Amino acid sequence: MPRRSFPLPEVYRLLEPGPVVLLTTARNGRTNIMAQSWHTMLEFNPPLLACVVSNRNFTFNALKATRECVINIPTVELARKVVACGNVSGREVDKLQACELTPVAAAKVQAPLIAECYANLECKVVDTRAVPRYCLFVLEVVKAWIDTARKRPRTIHHQGRGVFMVAGNTIKLRSKMP
Amino acid sequence: MPRRSFPLPEVYRLLEPGPVVLLTTARNGRTNIMAQSWHTMLEFNPPLLACVVSNRNFTFNALKATRECVINIPTVELARKVVACGNVSGREVDKLQACELTPVAAAKVQAPLIAECYANLECKVVDTRAVPRYCLFVLEVVKAWIDTARKRPRTIHHQGRGVFMVAGNTIKLRSKMP
Repeated sequence: MPRRSFPLPEVYRLLEPGPVVLLTTARNGRTNIMAQSWHTMLEFNPPLLACVVSNRNFTFNALKATRECVINIPTVELARKVVACGNVSGREVDKLQACELTPVAAAKVQAPLIAECYANLECKVVDTRAVPRYCLFVLEVVKAWIDTARKRPRTIHHQGRGVFMVAGNTIKLRSKMP
Repeated sequence: MPRRSFPLPEVYRLLEPGPVVLLTTARNGRTNIMAQSWHTMLEFNPPLLACVVSNRNFTFNALKATRECVINIPTVELARKVVACGNVSGREVDKLQACELTPVAAAKVQAPLIAECYANLECKVVDTRAVPRYCLFVLEVVKAWIDTARKRPRTIHHQGRGVFMVAGNTIKLRSKMP
């Protein structure tokens, strides 16, 4: 897969539309994945984002301890695997293996990239002050990757109860918004 | 427009997919709107969300002072008006009038609902501790409305540079995710 570095000031263009993401962590040689869509951009550059990881999730302690993760953005082709990821806990199984997803070494963090995802954002935790109250982590994206072969990545967007909206067409309007 | 009350525990189903929203405020009899898509759910019920309003926006001071707003969710039919909202400042013009949007009285807050939007979430600011650092407000949705006549609301999702993804089809998978 032709994966190239993606400019950090453009990262908001990937996350702002609200895709479901797969968050990977690695702790003591053990990797885990969770499906997630409670995230928002906080700052363009360096790209900061806020991301809720419930303390009921196995990922919570790994993220708190290692202060690193990768936010992987899947497309509709992976929808079944994404849901499979959401339906089991890393406490019980090796989820990468269970969901048939391929880990690839990241450049700046221990957590793996997921090869099948069209974009991967290597993140460091930079602020945990909102964790006790909201399980809200502030992450800085330190390295971003994109699959250049994917011309029209159709992300999926969670609407609850197993329903996902699939990204449709794009429209272009004259906007002064960045 | 047949607008009915929408159950608060279901609000995440509207916001989690990442739509562009129109945030309305009212202060000293003056209403304002801003287009926004840096928001995330924080809690299901009562629905809490985190929302970035830059201190460069005219809305910032109104939100800080009144601690109230409405999050209105537009669909693709309103795309041009949404962009028009993003291209002017409430400092200079009455944006509701300039963008040809219709204010409707809310039930629990002073800020208006926008009649043309398919859903409207009346919100109170409940936590401002992350405002100094990130301009991040924590909002509680205290009342929600939905237009029951809209069977397939096609929300828009900002990808930067005037490009918006339009919500496509939905798929249903067997998920244990709430």
